[in-house]
Amino acid sequence: MSENKIMLSENELPKAWYNIQADMPNLPKPALNSATRQLAGPEDLSPIFPMGLIEQEVTSERWVEIPEEVLEIYRLWRPAPLCRARRLEKALDTPAKIFYKYEGVSPAGSHKLNTAVPQAYYNQKEGIKRLATETGAGQWGVALSQACNFFDLECMVYMVKVSYLQKPYRRTQMQIFGSDVIASPSEQTDSGRKILQEDPDSLGSLGIAISEAVEDAAGRDDTNYALGSVLNHVILHQTVIGLEAKEQMAKVDEYPDVVIACCGGGSNFSGIAFPFAYDIIVKGAKVNLLAVEPTACPTLTRGHLGYDYGDVAGFTPLLWMYTLGKDFMPPGIHAGGLRYHGESPLVSQLVHDGIVKARAYRQTDIFKSAEIFARCEGIVPAPESSHAIHGAIEEAVAAKEAGEARTILFNLSGHGLLDLPSYETYIDGKLIDYPLSEDSLKNSIEKLPKV
Amino acid sequence: MSENKIMLSENELPKAWYNIQADMPNLPKPALNSATRQLAGPEDLSPIFPMGLIEQEVTSERWVEIPEEVLEIYRLWRPAPLCRARRLEKALDTPAKIFYKYEGVSPAGSHKLNTAVPQAYYNQKEGIKRLATETGAGQWGVALSQACNFFDLECMVYMVKVSYLQKPYRRTQMQIFGSDVIASPSEQTDSGRKILQEDPDSLGSLGIAISEAVEDAAGRDDTNYALGSVLNHVILHQTVIGLEAKEQMAKVDEYPDVVIACCGGGSNFSGIAFPFAYDIIVKGAKVNLLAVEPTACPTLTRGHLGYDYGDVAGFTPLLWMYTLGKDFMPPGIHAGGLRYHGESPLVSQLVHDGIVKARAYRQTDIFKSAEIFARCEGIVPAPESSHAIHGAIEEAVAAKEAGEARTILFNLSGHGLLDLPSYETYIDGKLIDYPLSEDSLKNSIEKLPKV
Repeated sequence: MSENKIMLSENELPKAWYNIQADMPNLPKPALNSATRQLAGPEDLSPIFPMGLIEQEVTSERWVEIPEEVLEIYRLWRPAPLCRARRLEKALDTPAKIFYKYEGVSPAGSHKLNTAVPQAYYNQKEGIKRLATETGAGQWGVALSQACNFFDLECMVYMVKVSYLQKPYRRTQMQIFGSDVIASPSEQTDSGRKILQEDPDSLGSLGIAISEAVEDAAGRDDTNYALGSVLNHVILHQTVIGLEAKEQMAKVDEYPDVVIACCGGGSNFSGIAFPFAYDIIVKGAKVNLLAVEPTACPTLTRGHLGYDYGDVAGFTPLLWMYTLGKDFMPPGIHAGGLRYHGESPLVSQLVHDGIVKARAYRQTDIFKSAEIFARCEGIVPAPESSHAIHGAIEEAVAAKEAGEARTILFNLSGHGLLDLPSYETYIDGKLIDYPLSEDSLKNSIEKLPKV
Repeated sequence: MSENKIMLSENELPKAWYNIQADMPNLPKPALNSATRQLAGPEDLSPIFPMGLIEQEVTSERWVEIPEEVLEIYRLWRPAPLCRARRLEKALDTPAKIFYKYEGVSPAGSHKLNTAVPQAYYNQKEGIKRLATETGAGQWGVALSQACNFFDLECMVYMVKVSYLQKPYRRTQMQIFGSDVIASPSEQTDSGRKILQEDPDSLGSLGIAISEAVEDAAGRDDTNYALGSVLNHVILHQTVIGLEAKEQMAKVDEYPDVVIACCGGGSNFSGIAFPFAYDIIVKGAKVNLLAVEPTACPTLTRGHLGYDYGDVAGFTPLLWMYTLGKDFMPPGIHAGGLRYHGESPLVSQLVHDGIVKARAYRQTDIFKSAEIFARCEGIVPAPESSHAIHGAIEEAVAAKEAGEARTILFNLSGHGLLDLPSYETYIDGKLIDYPLSEDSLKNSIEKLPKV
């Protein structure tokens, strides 16, 4: 019997990231300066990003070399295993083969470290001493904390106050790596003080935390800002996932019929799917790329394709993307990483062009699938990643119904060990769904900026 | 440069466990029936253990074949990686090479699953439908819950009430795998009810929880009891760790000068060290075996070698071991897994015979080393495993002072992601040590049963 875990040696780690901008039939419309509505140039980004990343944001090179300093850190946990979910296949009694790429082996517990490391590296290389960022649930904050630690940068994390209070585990994890973690809204920034003046008991929001981090970075020469998803350079870094997965599938003479990942800002979906999108676009391969999202935040399935701000305060350039409108307040589902009004412009364009399909799931369903997966394979998955699991199970059941031995690949982007309170809600039968009326979506979409 | 992670393929997984009883120069004195003080026989154990495990408890065969059904589950995460801690070596500026075997990749997060799986297997094979166990911090309860889930057994976990209340994450993790988790003392058993009558607010103790689990198992034909350390069959199963590590070291032409692991009941220390003890005893190899324990529970370094009960209530046979006395109440250190008054008889005998050395560390020191390790290697270690890290750092510093390129191997038995509140205490500067006076030790040791 062939192995459950298909491993690569460290020498087989990809040496370059894949840049899909080189191959897309249509590029998304370019970002616009939010004030002038003119094309956003490097000068719009350079106050808060290093040139190394700004160049990656717009490059048309197909392959971008991974610096040796980044590879050295990647080797602490990469290449990540590709696993065959044999016990899940058996439980589902499906003729399908189910493979998953497991990114939870990263010391940060998720795929986020794949981009945190190069972001810290390029900033340090350009003389930056300190990074500021926001975090909601904490996955991104942990990843950036670890990356800053590896490259001797200070790290300032504005953590949404409700998470700061409810998720002390993640806060501690960031502090172990030397980060300053502060509850947002804070007294540290104008944006924070303004909110606190209006509402001293504000529990914060991702939008406020982003405003604080961007303000912090813009106001200090030694400090830049770092974002964990959405932008092209983030997507680029994550392609190491799919490049490895493709190599691993080849080792066992397999190729997927469908590639599945959850989609919030788009980085983990792109990470596994874009190297296969290359096969579709450049080589005419037949493989379904399936982005799955929560019904409670249905950006791709019910959103509008147009220009919108990346943040709630409207500090960022205007991005061309599927969006529910920056004022859309996603219900409090447990997959905090998928509660984002917008979407990566690259993913948005590929959905628009029919190269990527999207599907939305209810959280009551994804937790059921998470439980089935955990019982079969042992790993308790993150609620975000459980969307991909649910997609894989749906596809495996469909394969059984069709009597076809399809090959399914999904991205298990992180473990759920710090999300166990969400499982407690599920076990206690207290999990609810949040159906969204047409009206609730219409309101925020109608407020999109006119461009 | 050679790789950071030395991997084995699933085909290279050991096919047999190593039984050190075949090779020890002196066996520990045999267990005694606690009432008659006569040699304990299978009939003393069969009400709560299956014959498959009772045989392993006393076998003198050197190699015990690992059943294919157990290997199938092991392959979900084994072989576990052996890692070279290059960044730690650099940070310490030591000529020593530091390797660690990483058992935190198990879905249970620690080495405990190595024995939980065969224990569940042998019980299921002999028609048992349900296992009862106790858990303190929860590592063992999680491992047994997962193992029971894999072999379709029910699992009843008596969780010390203070942990039940303070560690809801672990409780939830057990429930995901279908276990019944109840706070101990409970209304479910005579021992529990008796305690609750005397003190309705009792927060429980490991001793009480063991009594409840043993009573539960002894009172039901369909139920057996399972223990996570101390006993010979548990130690046997854990040798898969050291057997793999030896093979992995050989792959890079290395052999350790010293092998280090933390020691509570002894299973994780034995797991990595006994395959090297074989080299010492049978082949005359020169390698130091170092068992490290907390100064707050110094069983091997300040305990007495003699007969004692394995549990506080005195339900178990009398075991020949280093002990602080069953009435010794270990201070509330964060390494809950090392708060045990006794020690594996096998480890005890080897310490007595000078084949294993023991050392005790303060928790303020081990957390400092844990932080250094996390910052270098990314992984936040369990407080228990951090004792081994501290030992490895001490050895690496000694190598530097001696100007010798020694090779150090330690067992990183688990990650600390569910122990982050302990780190919070450390970061907040609130960690304290618990020096033990001679008197406090004398009292409990003086009460040892007279045999």
